[in-house]
Amino acid sequence: MTIGVGLLGLGTVGSGVAAILASPQGRHPLVAALALRRVAVRDPARPRSVDLDPALLVTDPAAVVDDPDVDIVVEVMGGLEPARTLILRAIAAGKPVVTANKAVIARYGEEIAAAAEKQGVYVLIEAAVGGGIPIIEPLKQSLGGNRIHRVSGIINGTTNYILSRMAEEGAAYGDVLADAQRLGYAEADPAADVQGGDAADKIAILAGLAFGGPVPRAGIPTEGIDRLKARDVTYAAQLGFVVKLLAVAERINEHDQAEGIQLDVRVHPTLLPKHHPLAGVHGVNNAILVEGEPVGQVMFFGPGAGAGPTASAVVADILNIAGIRQVGGADAGLDPLLAASSWRPVSLADASLASHRNYVRLQTRDEAGVIGRIGTCFGTRGVSIQSIVQFEATEGSAEIVVITHQVRESSFRDALAAITALEEVQRVAACLRTL
Amino acid sequence: MTIGVGLLGLGTVGSGVAAILASPQGRHPLVAALALRRVAVRDPARPRSVDLDPALLVTDPAAVVDDPDVDIVVEVMGGLEPARTLILRAIAAGKPVVTANKAVIARYGEEIAAAAEKQGVYVLIEAAVGGGIPIIEPLKQSLGGNRIHRVSGIINGTTNYILSRMAEEGAAYGDVLADAQRLGYAEADPAADVQGGDAADKIAILAGLAFGGPVPRAGIPTEGIDRLKARDVTYAAQLGFVVKLLAVAERINEHDQAEGIQLDVRVHPTLLPKHHPLAGVHGVNNAILVEGEPVGQVMFFGPGAGAGPTASAVVADILNIAGIRQVGGADAGLDPLLAASSWRPVSLADASLASHRNYVRLQTRDEAGVIGRIGTCFGTRGVSIQSIVQFEATEGSAEIVVITHQVRESSFRDALAAITALEEVQRVAACLRTL
Repeated sequence: MTIGVGLLGLGTVGSGVAAILASPQGRHPLVAALALRRVAVRDPARPRSVDLDPALLVTDPAAVVDDPDVDIVVEVMGGLEPARTLILRAIAAGKPVVTANKAVIARYGEEIAAAAEKQGVYVLIEAAVGGGIPIIEPLKQSLGGNRIHRVSGIINGTTNYILSRMAEEGAAYGDVLADAQRLGYAEADPAADVQGGDAADKIAILAGLAFGGPVPRAGIPTEGIDRLKARDVTYAAQLGFVVKLLAVAERINEHDQAEGIQLDVRVHPTLLPKHHPLAGVHGVNNAILVEGEPVGQVMFFGPGAGAGPTASAVVADILNIAGIRQVGGADAGLDPLLAASSWRPVSLADASLASHRNYVRLQTRDEAGVIGRIGTCFGTRGVSIQSIVQFEATEGSAEIVVITHQVRESSFRDALAAITALEEVQRVAACLRTL
Repeated sequence: MTIGVGLLGLGTVGSGVAAILASPQGRHPLVAALALRRVAVRDPARPRSVDLDPALLVTDPAAVVDDPDVDIVVEVMGGLEPARTLILRAIAAGKPVVTANKAVIARYGEEIAAAAEKQGVYVLIEAAVGGGIPIIEPLKQSLGGNRIHRVSGIINGTTNYILSRMAEEGAAYGDVLADAQRLGYAEADPAADVQGGDAADKIAILAGLAFGGPVPRAGIPTEGIDRLKARDVTYAAQLGFVVKLLAVAERINEHDQAEGIQLDVRVHPTLLPKHHPLAGVHGVNNAILVEGEPVGQVMFFGPGAGAGPTASAVVADILNIAGIRQVGGADAGLDPLLAASSWRPVSLADASLASHRNYVRLQTRDEAGVIGRIGTCFGTRGVSIQSIVQFEATEGSAEIVVITHQVRESSFRDALAAITALEEVQRVAACLRTL
């Protein structure tokens, strides 16, 4: 039984998928059952890395979706539109969809899921998060027996590359970014990566699967690495920490309530203790740590981007659809694990009620007693301190770094306001979360 | 639709499974569709950590398999018999099986798979390797588009705990083992763990899935950590390596041949460069690294044993069976990915033809020129050396450590024979593989 595949897009990922389908030898035998039937491209004349029959190429993507020989629609064109419309069109035609488009899923996931459920088709998204790392399937199919507490991860390769080099070389953010752009590790417009938006898209998707309900993407507090100073990376290292752009989704209330569960979801540069499992993830690699009861901590690590890894994830989804076709006939039901419908409401918690550890760098006058007064400001507001260290002082100015224990965000902000009001304190030079 | 579960065994893992089924709140809703129907125990009067209706307990395991209310048979009793017979009995009755029993699968996997294929039922084994780490499912369902080159892993928690403590404390193997036994991290009879047999069982299973055909378990060269000296762990650290008990399955011939593919499969203490992804895996944790084209390297990390993690994996398998039941009716086919039938012949390569890097510690007379003569012995046999270092010498005796580049095993053995024949060389004190 041959299964017809239609590709929307033949860029990096699309070419990678086409290359796998064109050389099934040595892969799972089910790959040989897949046949590329039609490919939507912008410019059919453009030279391609993969050798395709020109008759497969069309410029109208709707023609791929509508082709009766296309059984599975693979959307690897990126962007919000026309990707969203084409995905919905495929679903309406009763065709399962595989997509690598995290932006569309993070924003229109609910609409797409509702349409898919109504039509009884799968929309699979392994490639949308973590590149080649199998993380979506394990979340859906291997961890269902658990109560998930937290999902955290390094899920943007560009920023992890930049942070790795900042830590190794003590280099400034802007310099490493420019170099990363030159080397092709960062886009000409790096905003989605360095400002954290891409990671926020991905943690919204992961949290939705891990916790069983759609996560409001727009409400995720997001801070990138674009204002991070080399100095803080250096101080963090001296205190035994590594700075990573972490995306975290954590359950706040312990028991399910009628109104569902509350999550603290966020993206920000974070100090990780050097022995934390995510601290050793360098370069463009990604890693996702899932914590739950009774499994404990499990981590998934690998290449977070690139044609090959992402194509591996896309083909995994195609294979899953092809495999499950052999189970039921024409009127088969959906596997609830693979379909991953939402099963409880999820809302974002009030960020001021959440608790975190913090790293603060203060610029102060270089005077005796400053550390004591800062310590008192924290202490009287119930903010417990793990360490307070004075770093190099120059011309009457000193830098004091405080790492707090886990404290409620509102108490921490109160203390910080009081510290800013101290005469000796010139400014809060940096403020980062700490695990 | 309720799905009846029958448990064979109510030890650590069985109790963990029963605990999950007894408290479905907050887990995937499909858990609530599972009902524990019958449990085989040796002594029904024994007190249990989990609160079960005594009416569920039976002492005859066949009564669990035969119970018409039991839809899925979960074998968590361990041991070869009667586990094997009960698994085959369940299959013969057309009931899918979930098992955590790596020993049975590594030895009787072919027999069991053939019976399962004939009856059209699943035998799922996520819990057999890597405890709570999702690794079986990803290998079967997420990496099928790849040509796998190598699967390597730290897949025995007991030995990794011992090696971690030897490295941290410079302690002797025997002392740490005794302590591990006292703390419950090692069995009273530690042979299966420390001699590598458990890891060999597991790599046979992983390789079978990754490469698509059954691996002859009995042919796997296996070396444990029971003869490892603290001194070699220390020297390795000084040279920038960490010693781990690694299980490796690697493809030797690049192209598929009529007689199938050849694998180099082995278990032995191995020096890993400090920055290798597996080098940072400490304590009772496990990690499996999968390398393939086009995915590159992906790694799966987590708790390799324990009631909770292993129960998480068992329940994952039960859920997968329950989920796929909703797809097809009574006469549904098997999902070829989940069923994971073998699809090509696999054989073990002649070990002497394989190539490896090596670590050798030689005890020699403390004389000028020894290093040169050892170097020459390697050089004339085409064994390229990465480093040769003399460590502490006492009373006319010196210790020389050689790390070779990748060389064919037969050439290395030839050189070693010539070196042993040198007058100045007293003995080959240690010989370990190096990645």
